[in-house]
Amino acid sequence: MSGFSFKVVKARGQARFGELHTPHGSINTPAFVPVGTQATVKAVRPRDLLEIKAQLLICNTYHLYLRPGAEVVSNAGGLHGFMNWKGPIMTDSGGFQVLSLGAGIEHGVGKTVKLFADSADDSRIEALADMKKSRGEIITREKFCFVSDERIIFKSHLDGTFHEWTPEKSIDMQNKLGADIIFALDECTSPLHNREYTEKSLQRSHAWEERSLEAFQKGQGLRAKGQGKAQAIYGIVQGGPYEDLRRQSTKFVESHDFFGIGIGGALVNKIVMEQILDWVAAELSDNKPVHLLGIGGIDDIFAGVERGVDSFDCADPTRISRRGDILLSPEDGGSRKNRWRANISAGEFREDLNPLGIKCGCPACSEGFSKSYVNHLMRSRELTGYTLTTIHNLYVMEKLMAEIREGIAENKLEKVKERWMG
Amino acid sequence: MSGFSFKVVKARGQARFGELHTPHGSINTPAFVPVGTQATVKAVRPRDLLEIKAQLLICNTYHLYLRPGAEVVSNAGGLHGFMNWKGPIMTDSGGFQVLSLGAGIEHGVGKTVKLFADSADDSRIEALADMKKSRGEIITREKFCFVSDERIIFKSHLDGTFHEWTPEKSIDMQNKLGADIIFALDECTSPLHNREYTEKSLQRSHAWEERSLEAFQKGQGLRAKGQGKAQAIYGIVQGGPYEDLRRQSTKFVESHDFFGIGIGGALVNKIVMEQILDWVAAELSDNKPVHLLGIGGIDDIFAGVERGVDSFDCADPTRISRRGDILLSPEDGGSRKNRWRANISAGEFREDLNPLGIKCGCPACSEGFSKSYVNHLMRSRELTGYTLTTIHNLYVMEKLMAEIREGIAENKLEKVKERWMG
Repeated sequence: MSGFSFKVVKARGQARFGELHTPHGSINTPAFVPVGTQATVKAVRPRDLLEIKAQLLICNTYHLYLRPGAEVVSNAGGLHGFMNWKGPIMTDSGGFQVLSLGAGIEHGVGKTVKLFADSADDSRIEALADMKKSRGEIITREKFCFVSDERIIFKSHLDGTFHEWTPEKSIDMQNKLGADIIFALDECTSPLHNREYTEKSLQRSHAWEERSLEAFQKGQGLRAKGQGKAQAIYGIVQGGPYEDLRRQSTKFVESHDFFGIGIGGALVNKIVMEQILDWVAAELSDNKPVHLLGIGGIDDIFAGVERGVDSFDCADPTRISRRGDILLSPEDGGSRKNRWRANISAGEFREDLNPLGIKCGCPACSEGFSKSYVNHLMRSRELTGYTLTTIHNLYVMEKLMAEIREGIAENKLEKVKERWMG
Repeated sequence: MSGFSFKVVKARGQARFGELHTPHGSINTPAFVPVGTQATVKAVRPRDLLEIKAQLLICNTYHLYLRPGAEVVSNAGGLHGFMNWKGPIMTDSGGFQVLSLGAGIEHGVGKTVKLFADSADDSRIEALADMKKSRGEIITREKFCFVSDERIIFKSHLDGTFHEWTPEKSIDMQNKLGADIIFALDECTSPLHNREYTEKSLQRSHAWEERSLEAFQKGQGLRAKGQGKAQAIYGIVQGGPYEDLRRQSTKFVESHDFFGIGIGGALVNKIVMEQILDWVAAELSDNKPVHLLGIGGIDDIFAGVERGVDSFDCADPTRISRRGDILLSPEDGGSRKNRWRANISAGEFREDLNPLGIKCGCPACSEGFSKSYVNHLMRSRELTGYTLTTIHNLYVMEKLMAEIREGIAENKLEKVKERWMG
């Protein structure tokens, strides 16, 4: 793992301001990590990401494995060469997508699926199905995902072909994709899984993480073509909403030779998420970087930072951009009440000549595009609209993170939190 | 028309290298004019257009009148302020869109329509309808467009509301939109209109152009808010594929106080287009800039330049970008045979690590994006793919025009033509 190090520059309670060094550059933490699912952050280019000072991207191994294929990316010099982003990159293990097209869907926390694994608490699923039925929601697409201790078998959402996924395969694919930071394969349970299944699943996750680590240690020579640089691997804490399992899992990951720690399966509700983070934080050592997977609400970020989380990835800021939601800083009236959002397509903005953010320094705002114009672009479904809202929203996230880092460094995190949370 | 002038710097036969000065900047001619239908060149930003050295944009009055409305644009300081493009802009009169949703559609040269005006050569329309039927094509959407000497009544393609369009209204709308160069309202005939209708229509066009000119001259005070700058107006030559009508129309426009001359209705086939341009050229004086409306194929541009055309607008280079067609310069194998195009989504490019153009200096190519990556983006319908292909294609058009200008200036236009036409 040459070229990797993590240093806590300043800790304030559990919150910490740190530096994460990778062969492709250094990241100031806490950091927000934009999502580039298919080797592109939707609607923007690497130059835009540089301009808003994005530090680290995360790409999805599942999607890239299916299209264009890990070999294509590897031949282009790995993700850095392929997508033309020279800064640090993470890839996930593919497990979340494979499984979210499985149990997560049937449980109503992901997309639609026919679950073949007999693993869930039937009464809770039935209650959910009843609720969905009463709302007139119908499960229309059947997907396939079968999990055993040895492997996952799943059907591609693109062409219906069958694929096998194992810890070794995940690591091999992530080696080929060549991101700086990769993740061990785990089984991400759904919040509707029962205690019995969650417990059994955690043992499976731990076994998969050990296999991932072993494959990673063996495979360090098998990097993307032309990419001499090393990778670092994070283990993942699972355990559902159960304190003892979360503590056990944190100890497990801490005791293994992972460079960093990911926290998975925490996307439940905000109260449970905070509990999970409290339990995990109690078992964490101070010397490893901690990444919270798939979570990036503004309130969630404060909750995570206060519990020792160093990085957050989340597709929301980019996804909501494409439906016209712009993020509001406190000076633009953003608060917990409006979820820091306004929809730019609303009639009230039709003739509003102000920029998206009144004092916003993002390229969209400082270049002179008005709310009125972006309103027109979004109503006309013009692609440039998606680009401008994405740039603005990612910039607001970067601004939030910069304020949080400054808050920790200058002992005023509480003030920063008050400012944003209102 | 203060701030406007046109100077032929160098003429070579009918081809000429010129300078068109507007209050928002000067344009070297012959120039290609990217289309920004809804006040945005699809998938790119003004900064991208500046970077590829685009000189002049054209926006569509019909679309902007319907959405967001000319008043909204006017309140934002006209198109320059609204769309944040500080360089020269043209708007068309709206007539082409109004009518192409009318006769053009029924005649199969536009979109689908139910024609209420009893104006076309029935036998030719029937033949076309038979051909369409034999191919299994069905006219599914009914549109409405009624033309009289006084006005056009049409139905919005957005919400089905009825609208009235007159020369005075077109000029009023174009005043409010505030482009540098605006066009008189004409009736654009379809190539399937018969001689009788085309003749009658030409008289109507000329009457409308006189009304347009009068409204323009009266309305020079009524500019977009905060826009002190003047506008210039182009008349339009019509007359279908009939020599006498084209000559008559050119004389008509020449004899009126129009700053420039547009050539409309020339999008028939390449042989007829060249004939039309020959007839028009024979009647043109040398001192007015000439714009060929809606035409911009690479061969068409050479044909136009050789017949005295100074500018060309065409949606093709941007439209084909979004279906993955990239333009090929001669050094990338572009020729009349492949229509200077390759589809980047093709399997052959899946692992091609070369840029879209081998020696291309466009931002997409010089920044390091490969064919392989753009192939992946297009297959994945990623928005960034559309941005990259659009930038590349507009850059190739600018490169072509720069070579043509140099060719005229240095007496080697034939060589430039040979290089591109092969």
